[in-house]
Amino acid sequence: MEPAGYAGADTGRLDATFAALADPTRRAILARLARGEASVTELAEPFAMSQPAISKHLKVLERAGLISRGREAQRRPRRLQAQPLAEANQWLENYRRCWEESFQRLDVLLAEMKTASRKRGRPK
Amino acid sequence: MEPAGYAGADTGRLDATFAALADPTRRAILARLARGEASVTELAEPFAMSQPAISKHLKVLERAGLISRGREAQRRPRRLQAQPLAEANQWLENYRRCWEESFQRLDVLLAEMKTASRKRGRPK
Repeated sequence: MEPAGYAGADTGRLDATFAALADPTRRAILARLARGEASVTELAEPFAMSQPAISKHLKVLERAGLISRGREAQRRPRRLQAQPLAEANQWLENYRRCWEESFQRLDVLLAEMKTASRKRGRPK
Repeated sequence: MEPAGYAGADTGRLDATFAALADPTRRAILARLARGEASVTELAEPFAMSQPAISKHLKVLERAGLISRGREAQRRPRRLQAQPLAEANQWLENYRRCWEESFQRLDVLLAEMKTASRKRGRPK
């Protein structure tokens, strides 16, 4: 988590993973593929989107290493490749302490507000 | 994790978080701020970058809700806001089963390769 180390080996990979995840359609495609492989036609179905538009998103996901193509000649089903997600998860885990602390501060604040409002509500 | 649910309330927030994380300088800034608040000058120091360039990155992080500005008039120190990271982490956790399965498949494959190479190495 040292700033000096930001030019590490997997920097480009993390860039590509996070950029690929910054779109709701691409995240929805990954959610669909987590349930099993699917052809481009099957992936396009739930979206109000042309097949070329979906293909563009698939290209971004493929370049980021998040999906691969099956060998089956006709359907060329897409498959989820979850390893880059594990790496992104690992990067985020460095900050767990930070968000847990901020949630704790929020809990304390809420408890204080509750006590204060109870005191105000008490008959004098 | 349903594709139909991708237009959920926090979709825009996840978009902004992942887009903000898709850059090594911005990730390094967050890593620095995880160690404590810092002024723009302090944040610019470790980078071979102009202050305006750093300010641009800070704006992206601020818009994504990942940093906030302190009240101290002169320094206006930036502070990490880790809650969006918790949300991104939660989204990724949906895929834990997927990457654990793929790591298990890799382990099996490696074990098979080891056995095969040992068999080849055995004197006949």
